[in-house]
Amino acid sequence: MIVALLTDFGTRDHFVASVKGTILSAAPAATVVDITHEIEPQNIDEAAFTLGACYRDFPAGTIFLAVVDPGVGSARRPVAVRCDDRTFICPDNGILSFVLENSGEYNAFEIENSEFGSTNISATFHGRDIFAPAAARIANGLDPGSLGRRVTDLCILETAKAVHEGNRTAGVIVHIDRFGNLITNLMPDDIPGQFSIEINDRYVSQLRSFYAQAAPGEIFAIVGSTGRIEISVYGGSAKDLLGADPGQRITVTNLSEGD
Amino acid sequence: MIVALLTDFGTRDHFVASVKGTILSAAPAATVVDITHEIEPQNIDEAAFTLGACYRDFPAGTIFLAVVDPGVGSARRPVAVRCDDRTFICPDNGILSFVLENSGEYNAFEIENSEFGSTNISATFHGRDIFAPAAARIANGLDPGSLGRRVTDLCILETAKAVHEGNRTAGVIVHIDRFGNLITNLMPDDIPGQFSIEINDRYVSQLRSFYAQAAPGEIFAIVGSTGRIEISVYGGSAKDLLGADPGQRITVTNLSEGD
Amino acid sequence: MIVALLTDFGTRDHFVASVKGTILSAAPAATVVDITHEIEPQNIDEAAFTLGACYRDFPAGTIFLAVVDPGVGSARRPVAVRCDDRTFICPDNGILSFVLENSGEYNAFEIENSEFGSTNISATFHGRDIFAPAAARIANGLDPGSLGRRVTDLCILETAKAVHEGNRTAGVIVHIDRFGNLITNLMPDDIPGQFSIEINDRYVSQLRSFYAQAAPGEIFAIVGSTGRIEISVYGGSAKDLLGADPGQRITVTNLSEGD
Repeated sequence: MIVALLTDFGTRDHFVASVKGTILSAAPAATVVDITHEIEPQNIDEAAFTLGACYRDFPAGTIFLAVVDPGVGSARRPVAVRCDDRTFICPDNGILSFVLENSGEYNAFEIENSEFGSTNISATFHGRDIFAPAAARIANGLDPGSLGRRVTDLCILETAKAVHEGNRTAGVIVHIDRFGNLITNLMPDDIPGQFSIEINDRYVSQLRSFYAQAAPGEIFAIVGSTGRIEISVYGGSAKDLLGADPGQRITVTNLSEGD
Repeated sequence: MIVALLTDFGTRDHFVASVKGTILSAAPAATVVDITHEIEPQNIDEAAFTLGACYRDFPAGTIFLAVVDPGVGSARRPVAVRCDDRTFICPDNGILSFVLENSGEYNAFEIENSEFGSTNISATFHGRDIFAPAAARIANGLDPGSLGRRVTDLCILETAKAVHEGNRTAGVIVHIDRFGNLITNLMPDDIPGQFSIEINDRYVSQLRSFYAQAAPGEIFAIVGSTGRIEISVYGGSAKDLLGADPGQRITVTNLSEGD
Repeated sequence: MIVALLTDFGTRDHFVASVKGTILSAAPAATVVDITHEIEPQNIDEAAFTLGACYRDFPAGTIFLAVVDPGVGSARRPVAVRCDDRTFICPDNGILSFVLENSGEYNAFEIENSEFGSTNISATFHGRDIFAPAAARIANGLDPGSLGRRVTDLCILETAKAVHEGNRTAGVIVHIDRFGNLITNLMPDDIPGQFSIEINDRYVSQLRSFYAQAAPGEIFAIVGSTGRIEISVYGGSAKDLLGADPGQRITVTNLSEGD
């Protein structure tokens, strides 16, 4: 059974090792795989996008442990969610937004500490003390329904979907990748035949099918490998050229006649 | 059998891959897990703390390969140490200090090159040429006692324990984590009921049970997830606020009457 | 079956996870191991050196997926290459140069997309859509010859070998490691008994067998752990001291009489 990890713990400290050791102690047959541990600390938007971008590449049955958890120690619920043939162990803070938007239906349960888990739960490290033991038990075959009460109102981020109003669509840059591409929350359907996207007083109006269609230095939109619209520059970094930041809002204006 | 790796090799070069390949060549059934490879180059204190902070989360039987080795090529001994139901393969330079302080008893043996291992030992890469072959052989069931002569005087770092003198306790910051928390070598018993910890002309006198007990911006002490005292700031970085560095000495003054 | 990954994808984005998930979906019994994902973006020289430096440490039969691919979407061929008892899945852009120089003989085949693989190939992410499915099929026992037509003219980088002319040898710094050592493409045979290597107006004329032979601060040449000549400084960083950069050319002058 694969347990795939996504956190903002970084890779210098002992945190990730403690989570892996805890899983392997309780579920020796598990295969632990890293998605990333370099989510910007406490950036739930980025975590939600990254998880949504790769979870379907993993086999059905995979267990995802996703811990970006600004609310650790507060009342936010730890949950186990069955969705799209996979299981997600995480705080209920919107981190599953891009997964749920793909799939819609889910079976979710609160992880209620009193019933299982580490006997000595620290105030600050629920990744090791709550989420990892829950993931290990599910890897061992436990039904998520036995972890706690059913949850039907999982938190969804506003940024999971673009918002349409008249001839304008409000989107957001959910992530900027290593190559400086701006990945938005826009889907191909959000881009009309003729359009203009404004970012920091610059306008993008070309949708390209592949990079080499663009002229060197041209800023263009493209359907990225995750299925979302990305803003790219051929032979350069859209981030640097546009001075854009993750979380920044963008506006698409529909210029098509009669639409 | 799990072989868990902790080094200062970084993750850009081929070093870690060479170690993993060497282990998997000699012990194909081993499961190799990364603790971290981003220990500050040659910082044995940080390596010792990090190993001590997570080794007990791994299952009994785990083999730890811990290579932070400023003395490579000199007379420092490579050793295999059985302690706390686990095995540690490392240079004898203090890297096991926090493990040994937990456990006390150990069976240690020098890894004597002439008896086994790579036939072509490089001058600079003992991680691949001495430590990895030893870890693989132990993963295959070899008794550490057959690697070489018994060692009874393993090197222990001064920083593994705080030092008491009168109403003062001298400690040290052994690590600063990703979130800017200052992790000290102090144990909860080192902190009296009324105390003051001096760091760069600032004084910390509150011991909090969890973060939300503190006021925003307050600097406080807390028992961290590793069981050691940490200096933290609610909603901020103690490192930045106090200008503290790893390795820096700190002093606890006992202000309790009658103590 | 081990599948070892080397890319320039970085570790913050979802790219590596998508590749791993794709391999594990199609070849559940594969063991995925990271070499590095921090090759400088699009730096084929560095990728070729790093792969050459560690591939022989992995067991015979290992499958290497090496994707540093400035030409993604262009006409460069994706290939599967059997060489030195291992299999390499990569773009044919020179990334195997250091492997091929070791071994010479190879059996290579183009990966022809129409015959297998993802049904929905993105324009930008062939790591997931072409290379990972090919690696998974080979892990499952497919003969590389059934992927496509035979290739007999694999691309080789100029930097794989030093060039001799008269009493001079032209080399290049192929990589600078974490410790500031300058790793060259020179082999021990390229260094005569008496020599001078010029780097940024400084001259290196000592070949040392191990670090401690040198005086503190001395700049010297040494046969590194990969078998190539490295320029090092005892107790310091040759990169910082010499102001050297990866890719920089260097010249060896033969000062031996009668050579």
